[in-house]
Amino acid sequence: MQKDKRTSLTYRMFLSLMKSSLKGISQVILIENAVSGFIILMAITIYSYHLGVITLSSAIIGTLIGKLGGANENCVNSGLYGYNSVLTGIALTLFLTGPSQWIIALVGAALAAIFSAAMVHFMRNTGIPILTFPFIILTWFMLLVSYRLKAFQLSPGLVPQDLLHWNLNIAGKVNWLEGSFKGIGQIFFLDSTISGMLLFIAVFWAGWKYGLFAILGNAFALLISYGLGGEHSLIIMGLYGYNAILTCIAISMVFKEEHNRLAPISGVIAACLTVPLTAGVATWLLPYGLPALTMPFVLSTWLFLGARKVLPKL
Amino acid sequence: MQKDKRTSLTYRMFLSLMKSSLKGISQVILIENAVSGFIILMAITIYSYHLGVITLSSAIIGTLIGKLGGANENCVNSGLYGYNSVLTGIALTLFLTGPSQWIIALVGAALAAIFSAAMVHFMRNTGIPILTFPFIILTWFMLLVSYRLKAFQLSPGLVPQDLLHWNLNIAGKVNWLEGSFKGIGQIFFLDSTISGMLLFIAVFWAGWKYGLFAILGNAFALLISYGLGGEHSLIIMGLYGYNAILTCIAISMVFKEEHNRLAPISGVIAACLTVPLTAGVATWLLPYGLPALTMPFVLSTWLFLGARKVLPKL
Amino acid sequence: MQKDKRTSLTYRMFLSLMKSSLKGISQVILIENAVSGFIILMAITIYSYHLGVITLSSAIIGTLIGKLGGANENCVNSGLYGYNSVLTGIALTLFLTGPSQWIIALVGAALAAIFSAAMVHFMRNTGIPILTFPFIILTWFMLLVSYRLKAFQLSPGLVPQDLLHWNLNIAGKVNWLEGSFKGIGQIFFLDSTISGMLLFIAVFWAGWKYGLFAILGNAFALLISYGLGGEHSLIIMGLYGYNAILTCIAISMVFKEEHNRLAPISGVIAACLTVPLTAGVATWLLPYGLPALTMPFVLSTWLFLGARKVLPKL
Repeated sequence: MQKDKRTSLTYRMFLSLMKSSLKGISQVILIENAVSGFIILMAITIYSYHLGVITLSSAIIGTLIGKLGGANENCVNSGLYGYNSVLTGIALTLFLTGPSQWIIALVGAALAAIFSAAMVHFMRNTGIPILTFPFIILTWFMLLVSYRLKAFQLSPGLVPQDLLHWNLNIAGKVNWLEGSFKGIGQIFFLDSTISGMLLFIAVFWAGWKYGLFAILGNAFALLISYGLGGEHSLIIMGLYGYNAILTCIAISMVFKEEHNRLAPISGVIAACLTVPLTAGVATWLLPYGLPALTMPFVLSTWLFLGARKVLPKL
Repeated sequence: MQKDKRTSLTYRMFLSLMKSSLKGISQVILIENAVSGFIILMAITIYSYHLGVITLSSAIIGTLIGKLGGANENCVNSGLYGYNSVLTGIALTLFLTGPSQWIIALVGAALAAIFSAAMVHFMRNTGIPILTFPFIILTWFMLLVSYRLKAFQLSPGLVPQDLLHWNLNIAGKVNWLEGSFKGIGQIFFLDSTISGMLLFIAVFWAGWKYGLFAILGNAFALLISYGLGGEHSLIIMGLYGYNAILTCIAISMVFKEEHNRLAPISGVIAACLTVPLTAGVATWLLPYGLPALTMPFVLSTWLFLGARKVLPKL
Repeated sequence: MQKDKRTSLTYRMFLSLMKSSLKGISQVILIENAVSGFIILMAITIYSYHLGVITLSSAIIGTLIGKLGGANENCVNSGLYGYNSVLTGIALTLFLTGPSQWIIALVGAALAAIFSAAMVHFMRNTGIPILTFPFIILTWFMLLVSYRLKAFQLSPGLVPQDLLHWNLNIAGKVNWLEGSFKGIGQIFFLDSTISGMLLFIAVFWAGWKYGLFAILGNAFALLISYGLGGEHSLIIMGLYGYNAILTCIAISMVFKEEHNRLAPISGVIAACLTVPLTAGVATWLLPYGLPALTMPFVLSTWLFLGARKVLPKL
């Protein structure tokens, strides 16, 4: 019986770890919901079995580091030590190649959890959430490393370019429906319509409001990026949409307080702002051949959350 | 009579808005004085009628956002939500071209006010003013956007350059008087001697001390930039002077406290420091073809104001 | 007798200034010990007499600015206003050439002390030490200035490179013993085995634990940089080791608190992390031709010290 108890304890701890890890996956889109996390995991696994394994492992690693390091239990259980690890694991798997790719991805996932803890400390006084900042900076660094250490092999898609010889070519037709579903997929780097649909289900499962603001942010971003003359190929791939989705959910809903009466409008404006921010960040990174990741989301959301502390109606 | 009262109320609100907006224009040179603001507006309008309209509109937009967003009333009335908008509006008008140029400039002015609010929050704990940081970062981003979105058309003067093939050419005669008046003009991007004189009048109107430190900062910057071997063409255009003027006023006067006994000396040193800072920032931005704007002023002033909190005599 | 007293007072003040300055030299490797500082000064002077003079002068200038500016007396006496000045003075002497090189180095040393004071203020709320951040940023800026002001002449070793045309060449044999002693030498930019030995003596003089963690950090960095495929020429020169030494001492020992039970392990992990960080920072700086300096140490140490505030066992 003593053994039974221990088994059941281990089992309960395992269940709790899995639940926190799935929540970590859902936290990527600012949702705390294990079922949504599971649906997202499925959307990723359908796209690539290998990527699904990395996703779950990264979430578990991040959560474990939070637990073993002695972080605030509520934060760990809400998945707040998982989402940066999840994104880092996925990004490093996709942007690196070679035999040690998956070890680097998992070590990266572990570092993302430590980086998250450090950022929580550095931003504590501001009362502003860290969002996906640790994932972005860490991934950029790990990709830059490939130019100096043989073990890091960059995937051939990432090529540094000279701003002086850069030519903007926006030709091509826009498929609006494809653009809509790929936008949400790009949050997890999934260039797939079916996975996009599954992700929308995950979002709606957590609450219809999440879904509404996701659609709203995406729609506005598509229109604005088309209206301002963005590259049509990028618009179709959803590369102007994913930051807008996250920003709209963050500003209109998740980090809203009662006195923010203009929150829905602020959210849409912030979502629109991610379009020029995406363009600006991409230009800035051009000489290094790095992807913008979710930096436009982080910048736009920090901007509006910071402004709200001084302009309370926003 | 009821109607009369309402009219007079509207009229009073309009007057208050105009006064705050003119103060917003004067805050660009760290002065809170509506008359100085009006003289500056004239200096800009003489240079370009179109630019004058953008300047006033930007100031009003920034101030309105402060008011409607519910910011601290005193700050809004002092013009503290106007000056970043003014600079952003002017810079985007001058550095962009094309039909949507003025819309972008005014949207930029609005974003500058939101960015100012966010920065006020982020820097609150430090007790250090935000200066023109929001304007600088926002303008840089908006200019980078032009490489990715067709609606943003960069003016042909801003060309990215390769540091490897950069050659420094300092040849040419220095016209010291021209350099002196153009330095203050460059704060508002005005490459004109007459506008420069009007700006000096605006500064002296606010107080002879402002004028004294403006002249002092400018003179030292001219000498140091010449002595260290800066490009003579830039020295004549006042491009090594405008940051020094702002810095000298900020450190020697505006943000001085009683125990800062060395304030006048610190101000001159900080003004001299803007010369290498201008050179360093310009080099850093060379691959992107971006202008240094007032970043040297912000860096030098933050450096000395921060140091003062620890070295109180400075 | 009156004169005697005054002489003895001047003499005591001179002694105290020298002691603080020597401590400033030892603080570069996170040690507060005047004798260690003196041994380090010897190691530098053996390598180059000129560099020894600059080192001592820089330490004195930094300490004097702290004293005259009215900084906290304990901090000044511990050498905390000296070490950034020491490093800045040495780096500017080595990376610049020309007749005004040594004036620039000493002015740089003075600015480093002011920058240190500002950083102490800006980071006060975080409870995290400023480390060598002021030295790094200041030196980078001063080197960039050389492209714009004739008085600043860059030494020919620093050439901007295009990331697109960069080729990684790791060929060559690794001399492990040479790599070990040169690693500690590189903290002071000394590419010399004898000076490296003297530096190890200085470290062990301050305490055998300092020496132990220095060796540990260096050893792990050598193995990791070799294992990940770093350039062998850089490994031999100790360029992958010096950041690891500083980081290991900082995390495992100097900034350790009682509840950080995993401190020795964290220190080794943080030391290993400096290897990819060195590679990443070097790549990021490639287009500007700037050296990484101790930025990898600062980033890794800030990361772990910040994380510790949230993950107390780390």
